[in-house]
Amino acid sequence: MVATFEPKKTYKVIGTRPIRHDGYDKVTGRALYGADLKLPGQVWGAVLRSPYAHANITRMDTSEAEKYPGVLAVVTAKDMPKAESKMVDLGEGTVNEKHEVDRIMASDKIVFRGQPVAAVAAVDRNTAEEAVKLIRVEYQPLQPVLTVEEAMAKGAPIILPDLVGDDLGEKVKKTNMAKHFRHEFGDVEKGFSQAKHIVERTFKMSMTHQGYIEPHNAVAMWDEDNRLRIWTGTQGAFAVRKQMAGILKLDESRVKVTPMEIGGGFGGKIPVYLEPIAALLSKKCRRPVKLVMERKAVFESTGPAPGGTLRVKVGVDASGKITAAASDMKLEAGGFPGSAVGAAAMCIYSPYNIPNTTIDGWDIVVNKPKSAPYRAPGAPQAHFAMESVIDELCEKGGWDPIDFRLKNSAKEGTRRGDGVKFGSIGNVDVLKAASRSPHWKSVLNKDTTDGKKRGRGIASGYWFNIGLKSAVTLSANNDGTVSLVEGSTDIGGSRASIAMQAAEVLGIPALDVRPTVADTEGVAYNDVTGGSRTTYATGFAAYEAAIKMVEELKARAARIWNQDPSDILFKDGVFSAKKDSELRLNFKELSKKLGETGGPVTVTGSVDLSTGGGAYGAHIVDVEVDTETGKVEILRYTIVQDVGKAIHPSYVEGQMQGGVVQGIGWALNEEYFMTKEGTMANSSFLDYRMPTTLDLPKIETVIVEVFNPGHPFGVRGVGEVPIAPPIAAIGNALHDALGVRLVETPFKPGRIMEALEAQSKAAAVKPKR
Amino acid sequence: MVATFEPKKTYKVIGTRPIRHDGYDKVTGRALYGADLKLPGQVWGAVLRSPYAHANITRMDTSEAEKYPGVLAVVTAKDMPKAESKMVDLGEGTVNEKHEVDRIMASDKIVFRGQPVAAVAAVDRNTAEEAVKLIRVEYQPLQPVLTVEEAMAKGAPIILPDLVGDDLGEKVKKTNMAKHFRHEFGDVEKGFSQAKHIVERTFKMSMTHQGYIEPHNAVAMWDEDNRLRIWTGTQGAFAVRKQMAGILKLDESRVKVTPMEIGGGFGGKIPVYLEPIAALLSKKCRRPVKLVMERKAVFESTGPAPGGTLRVKVGVDASGKITAAASDMKLEAGGFPGSAVGAAAMCIYSPYNIPNTTIDGWDIVVNKPKSAPYRAPGAPQAHFAMESVIDELCEKGGWDPIDFRLKNSAKEGTRRGDGVKFGSIGNVDVLKAASRSPHWKSVLNKDTTDGKKRGRGIASGYWFNIGLKSAVTLSANNDGTVSLVEGSTDIGGSRASIAMQAAEVLGIPALDVRPTVADTEGVAYNDVTGGSRTTYATGFAAYEAAIKMVEELKARAARIWNQDPSDILFKDGVFSAKKDSELRLNFKELSKKLGETGGPVTVTGSVDLSTGGGAYGAHIVDVEVDTETGKVEILRYTIVQDVGKAIHPSYVEGQMQGGVVQGIGWALNEEYFMTKEGTMANSSFLDYRMPTTLDLPKIETVIVEVFNPGHPFGVRGVGEVPIAPPIAAIGNALHDALGVRLVETPFKPGRIMEALEAQSKAAAVKPKR
Repeated sequence: MVATFEPKKTYKVIGTRPIRHDGYDKVTGRALYGADLKLPGQVWGAVLRSPYAHANITRMDTSEAEKYPGVLAVVTAKDMPKAESKMVDLGEGTVNEKHEVDRIMASDKIVFRGQPVAAVAAVDRNTAEEAVKLIRVEYQPLQPVLTVEEAMAKGAPIILPDLVGDDLGEKVKKTNMAKHFRHEFGDVEKGFSQAKHIVERTFKMSMTHQGYIEPHNAVAMWDEDNRLRIWTGTQGAFAVRKQMAGILKLDESRVKVTPMEIGGGFGGKIPVYLEPIAALLSKKCRRPVKLVMERKAVFESTGPAPGGTLRVKVGVDASGKITAAASDMKLEAGGFPGSAVGAAAMCIYSPYNIPNTTIDGWDIVVNKPKSAPYRAPGAPQAHFAMESVIDELCEKGGWDPIDFRLKNSAKEGTRRGDGVKFGSIGNVDVLKAASRSPHWKSVLNKDTTDGKKRGRGIASGYWFNIGLKSAVTLSANNDGTVSLVEGSTDIGGSRASIAMQAAEVLGIPALDVRPTVADTEGVAYNDVTGGSRTTYATGFAAYEAAIKMVEELKARAARIWNQDPSDILFKDGVFSAKKDSELRLNFKELSKKLGETGGPVTVTGSVDLSTGGGAYGAHIVDVEVDTETGKVEILRYTIVQDVGKAIHPSYVEGQMQGGVVQGIGWALNEEYFMTKEGTMANSSFLDYRMPTTLDLPKIETVIVEVFNPGHPFGVRGVGEVPIAPPIAAIGNALHDALGVRLVETPFKPGRIMEALEAQSKAAAVKPKR
Repeated sequence: MVATFEPKKTYKVIGTRPIRHDGYDKVTGRALYGADLKLPGQVWGAVLRSPYAHANITRMDTSEAEKYPGVLAVVTAKDMPKAESKMVDLGEGTVNEKHEVDRIMASDKIVFRGQPVAAVAAVDRNTAEEAVKLIRVEYQPLQPVLTVEEAMAKGAPIILPDLVGDDLGEKVKKTNMAKHFRHEFGDVEKGFSQAKHIVERTFKMSMTHQGYIEPHNAVAMWDEDNRLRIWTGTQGAFAVRKQMAGILKLDESRVKVTPMEIGGGFGGKIPVYLEPIAALLSKKCRRPVKLVMERKAVFESTGPAPGGTLRVKVGVDASGKITAAASDMKLEAGGFPGSAVGAAAMCIYSPYNIPNTTIDGWDIVVNKPKSAPYRAPGAPQAHFAMESVIDELCEKGGWDPIDFRLKNSAKEGTRRGDGVKFGSIGNVDVLKAASRSPHWKSVLNKDTTDGKKRGRGIASGYWFNIGLKSAVTLSANNDGTVSLVEGSTDIGGSRASIAMQAAEVLGIPALDVRPTVADTEGVAYNDVTGGSRTTYATGFAAYEAAIKMVEELKARAARIWNQDPSDILFKDGVFSAKKDSELRLNFKELSKKLGETGGPVTVTGSVDLSTGGGAYGAHIVDVEVDTETGKVEILRYTIVQDVGKAIHPSYVEGQMQGGVVQGIGWALNEEYFMTKEGTMANSSFLDYRMPTTLDLPKIETVIVEVFNPGHPFGVRGVGEVPIAPPIAAIGNALHDALGVRLVETPFKPGRIMEALEAQSKAAAVKPKR
């Protein structure tokens, strides 16, 4: 794809706000989720999970469970295909085959609490849950390793004996360090030597969970022909297919995956968890087997965002230009390698033009659940650290934080932290829009009568957005509507945003394009809904298909009018003949006349986009802190973001607001509160405190549209950028309010009280000098 | 479509016998039929049907049913959209809108027993069935009109007061005659004057039912957005969509139809019956409503093949050339107009070249269920009459029945009874193959020791086969398999026969093409599975798509090899570079390398074929009659048929055998046995006696392949021709055995005993002279 597009002045469909195609189904509760599925002969499964975070399995006895009345199948790791400790590509980057299989069901060792060790299928759910308790597992408990510091400490217990770490290209054995990479540009030492102000800070972050409302689910049917059918709530049916084929050693085309509606994913519903277990149970009992995860297992056994430790050092010269930045980021992979540290490195410096930079990234294995993508993976962590340091520098230098960011802004041609040069980007436009926003222009009234403290913070954030493969099929109906078949799971309104792009090209109303999300045999390959690629890439495929449909319809009009196809014009939704001005039909009129012009009109569109359109946000937040309790209230929040082009502004705003809310959760409440045994102590929605509407003001949104020339309508993608800045923005606001710099998430009441106490102690000490 | 194709010498996939793609699902019972469906919140419906065949509805009271605990909705004709008595196109030819709506649910008048008058939705099936009994309907019974003779008699009760008949173009009111047409060619009077032998006979036939094992079923969900979803076992999801839109006055694209697996159709599952009722119930209670028909209702209320009265007169000159033929056919439309008499007229003379012909066809309304297509609609009736007369003529003239048929055979350019000139046809080849068959060459041993009589018969048959619209989507998987999305319900193995045509083009095994039958939003428009069009037209669409896929793959190979696409060759499943003989990849190898060559490879194919490839069969049958009981045993049966090209010979043979078996049923046992009140007295499979395997010998099959130049692989279609000749072949065999000519179906024991009695009485009278 080397085509470069230019913006059109006006659109008819793009930028409007039609009701989403799946709206009625969703609000009436009729949309079918995985848990709604009931196939003939369907039975239930239950999974036995490890109560230890780190242990060897010394013995397992499933005989009692097998004898339990109503039990149809029992599986353990012995039923998994033999997996070697070697790297394979299962669709989401390469993984160690044995690790991937052990993640699904532990063979010899437990590396995180909640790791599956066995499963049962039975005639009903209660029977399965009773039977699973009859499986006897003997463990040899081992010392759990719960932080990157513990993991990297000398003499630390080795979690994965077969792990071969990569330390700047060198192989390392007997280690918990899966990877250490470095990006280095310019001369950092020289850069720091040119700096007048240098700030260096170390930040600590907790794991956080995506917190999707719908727990994981899977129904599997493995038949006598070795055809495996899977129904599951997933972000990518084709990704499930690839993982299943790899884990279960089947040809991909023997696996058919039907994506059910999905109740949130945020990256966490890309890896498979229950699907292979349900499949193996079904293989044994030849019935459709259903598994639905309980919430505790969702927290303990699926993939949260990595916590870790991040150190950032930035130098600024007297004029306010950043001269150098150095950072190291140690992120928790969880029980198996693979954190988002690589992506974090792509984001950390992206809002800035910094001549001299280094980034060291570490992927560290710890006895926690294997981390997974979570909305802009790595970006919230990276930006929390960087934007906190920038805020401190602005304070030191006395610079306005927007002016400072504008002065140092990345622009087209600027080098990213990992060396990639930016194309067209909108950071400057975002910052300018932020400076013009009512929120930024307003003055925060800090005079409170109740002793509460108020502050304002700002932070930038970036996500690169991905492209990859998408394909759609369009078919014209004779009532003027068009069926659109796509393979992209619709999480946040993408049925609408994809259909609208086809509708724009075809000159018909958005709702006259009828989108269907197909299974893996109903449409060509589509990469996952994630990376903010769906509206961008699948929308692009819809555009391509619609262009082809227009060409086909021109040929049909030519046949009806007895004209040459090259003499047919299409403009503003109307087909007309160049040589006879009386010959005019709009899309609907022409559709009704297709009957005798040839076969049904049906076309495909398909793209493989090597890059996405990177995008920026700037967030402004006002907070109020009750200094007696440490409770933080968000008074006002404005998100300014470049989305390239907002196809459906309501869903763009919704994505922006949703990302902010999750970021507020990371900042203020959410954490994996681990006991020293490696048990998550708050594995329920009562104790894992996500923000609700009652905790939040209306998030104000400012959509900035800097056309992405790599997409026909200029789309960049919207879903991920919004979660990148909130932690830093809130941290910066808290600093403004309290004068203390919080360096560990979440900024929970206890931590704020401790910081205030430390501050007052320091203040109490100072006067004595 | 004007392309003309030529046969290839060898095929790799076409003509082989792979396991069908849906085989495992079918034999393990896992294929999902309509009755298997269980949607969340689904409730059950039940239908109240008229106990009278002809009556006025004077009063209806649904209040008791509405009050019954568990009842969620009650509907009557008042809930149907207002329908005017005017002609509309609902997809299967034009119909009177009011008639079509009254057929679904009677508004003011009952025209056949079992016609729905009301329906109930309730929390479960039993409740619905109890509640429906509480609906009080008062009828004013009217004299039922049960035969075409009664219907056309002077002063006959008028069944449809608003019917305007068409008598050779003239409008007629107050009539039961919906249509009378005439095809007239040459000079029939002159033709008969040249004849040496003339035979004229009148035949009577009973209605027969398709007898599919799976009863009709429908689940409907009509939501608040006026989106109607239907799941049903149907021969055409798009036909259901069109009928639903017409009957319920919705835009077509508001109706989504998901075709479930189908347990037989034979033409009878093209019209909708339960679907609109389920839809209206759902509209009232906003739940998915399921209706499954009981067998009695299937017989009484769905669409059997028309019975009727047929008169045929044929003249032959001394040399054995047919000089003239005249026929009139009065077929029973049932309670509303629309029998297969038009198609009967297209078939009746088709095996022959007759210079002078007339055909008069009448479509007659009677108080029986509205007839529907049944496998080669009209052809069994027409050929029974014609081939019986031909047999009698051969006997009179002393001609061998195959020699006679060959001498008079239709060939390319011969005019059909309705005036259409034949293209390439294979009647001569079929007759020659029949004469060479082991069966025909064998001598039937007529010496029985138990007094049973044996005879042999032969008859020809024809079906024109249709084309119409089909479309498929193909997508390449990176393991070398291909997903094929089609809209044609698979009744008799068409997943296999369509996939094989794509596989042949792509040079891959049949099972590497994975077919999926999509819903009406998952694929472009497809006409019904019927008329023997599916393997022909949808296979053609698959061929078109596969050709496009090869072109796309050539472009991808060119990209990989850095060659010009025009320099890529594709032969025998291998892509190679013209200019570099070392560059060679087969389909599977190339598929694995598509990753970085562009978007997913996906294409569509679409056809609209104005004609099919007409085809012929010749059937030879040996029978044995127990003259003491009248029971007929089929001793041996051979079907010889031109199929154009047998894509999957096993399923071609299966279709041939299946058609014969149904024909044997028509001939020997099956009938609508009507009481004088218009009640079918045998509305169960116990009393409606269809042949079982125990009643039958193995049907021998001889496939003849006369390439159809209108199809890339020469396909003609196979499913319908086999039911055209059996009645006449068996009648002719019985005549050979007994010396009596049976002119009324079925040839049941009682009727045979009566004929033998009449014969012996006649014989007893003669000597006295």
